[in-house]
Amino acid sequence: MGIPSDMELTELQHYVPLFSGCSPREWQGLEQIMAPQFVEAGEILFRQGEPCSAFYAVVHGMLKLRLEEPGIRRVVGFVQQGGTCGESAVFSGEGYAVTAVAVCDCELMAIPAFPFLRLTQRFPNLALRMLGWISQRYHAHLRNSTRLAMQNADQRVAAWLLHHAAPRAGALRVILPPRRIDLANLLCITPETLCRIMKRLRTQGLVSVEGDIVHVVKPEGLQAIIAGMRERPHPPETPPRDTTTPRISRA
Amino acid sequence: MGIPSDMELTELQHYVPLFSGCSPREWQGLEQIMAPQFVEAGEILFRQGEPCSAFYAVVHGMLKLRLEEPGIRRVVGFVQQGGTCGESAVFSGEGYAVTAVAVCDCELMAIPAFPFLRLTQRFPNLALRMLGWISQRYHAHLRNSTRLAMQNADQRVAAWLLHHAAPRAGALRVILPPRRIDLANLLCITPETLCRIMKRLRTQGLVSVEGDIVHVVKPEGLQAIIAGMRERPHPPETPPRDTTTPRISRA
Repeated sequence: MGIPSDMELTELQHYVPLFSGCSPREWQGLEQIMAPQFVEAGEILFRQGEPCSAFYAVVHGMLKLRLEEPGIRRVVGFVQQGGTCGESAVFSGEGYAVTAVAVCDCELMAIPAFPFLRLTQRFPNLALRMLGWISQRYHAHLRNSTRLAMQNADQRVAAWLLHHAAPRAGALRVILPPRRIDLANLLCITPETLCRIMKRLRTQGLVSVEGDIVHVVKPEGLQAIIAGMRERPHPPETPPRDTTTPRISRA
Repeated sequence: MGIPSDMELTELQHYVPLFSGCSPREWQGLEQIMAPQFVEAGEILFRQGEPCSAFYAVVHGMLKLRLEEPGIRRVVGFVQQGGTCGESAVFSGEGYAVTAVAVCDCELMAIPAFPFLRLTQRFPNLALRMLGWISQRYHAHLRNSTRLAMQNADQRVAAWLLHHAAPRAGALRVILPPRRIDLANLLCITPETLCRIMKRLRTQGLVSVEGDIVHVVKPEGLQAIIAGMRERPHPPETPPRDTTTPRISRA
């Protein structure tokens, strides 16, 4: 890993949705303030509650976002290539809302908070696009958390796979986080339940799995599982035991 | 109800957190574009998915926000005096994220979307405060939804009461929504469970209830219930039956 070349920076602009609408002058401003940063697997990039010094775009690798409340430690999301995290903390004045941990060696681009705030004042459209981006994230989280509260375990897994499936060479594929327990924790199911459901999806020919890559073979099959909630109501799965033990669990 | 007088407009600036940081020139700009609006109990102010024409501040009354997904209709929040709704839709480009319904006759202030967007371009600080406000809302929702996924029914009720308790004449009080089923739906518990828990909180002397007003007598008692999750883990309550029935339920 090294400092991204000019070509890689241009690519970054294209695959980070937050940056793709930038004007040449806005992008020039961003290039002047951002800096590459590397974190190793297991390393904490920032901690919930810490004052926000920067937000980050993932160039290579994967981060997990973890929320810590009294007695609770729960994975609330993963950030993969092109994704960003920490940007809402630049504006909330509340510090980081979550803790970000590298789940593998990661190459990031750090965008420091104060220089970025100054940029948004120079370029009002950058602030408006940021408003759009954070609003969309908020809406997506509103929908996801409602689904989580209402869906059964099968529906949660099917919905997560479909939501994260990106087209690649004509097929839909999803990169799984290296530790299954993190995904189980995100979906509020036990790792055993996740394993059982993934096995059933493979047996039914809806997905195929190669290491950490899940190929979605029949998206309509996953869709049918999600829609099944209309016909066959289930109570939601209880959360994994490790998140409700007396001590804060390791997620 | 009538058009708010100048004095009432000034008051509005003080009790709507979103407006309280406005400079005199920003407030002047806002005053020129906003307009009073009235909705009757049961009336829909805006529907999820509709293009956003305005966002709203509640001057008197209460709105409920409802999210509709395939097979799901769930209350995700209430907006009381001083609260605002719909502002993230001004920027997301996705239409309203939720449906807003008046739970009683409401007096609102409508802030139309396009004139407001123009204001944020004239006043970059207004856009930055809006970014702060929406980011805080996003963080609060992240915390609330994680608690919901992890807490038992007693903890959810205690946390909701504490979170919404506002000091008034030296005491903490919460205004309950007129229909208890809406609050039960928000907390993903049955109305019967909500009724049973409220009765127990009264018996234990932690709260007293007068009509729609709950007085929090011993906040430390509610705090202890919430903290109890460290010692006495419970699986979360199953969602109310009426939200998982084959047909979309009436929340």
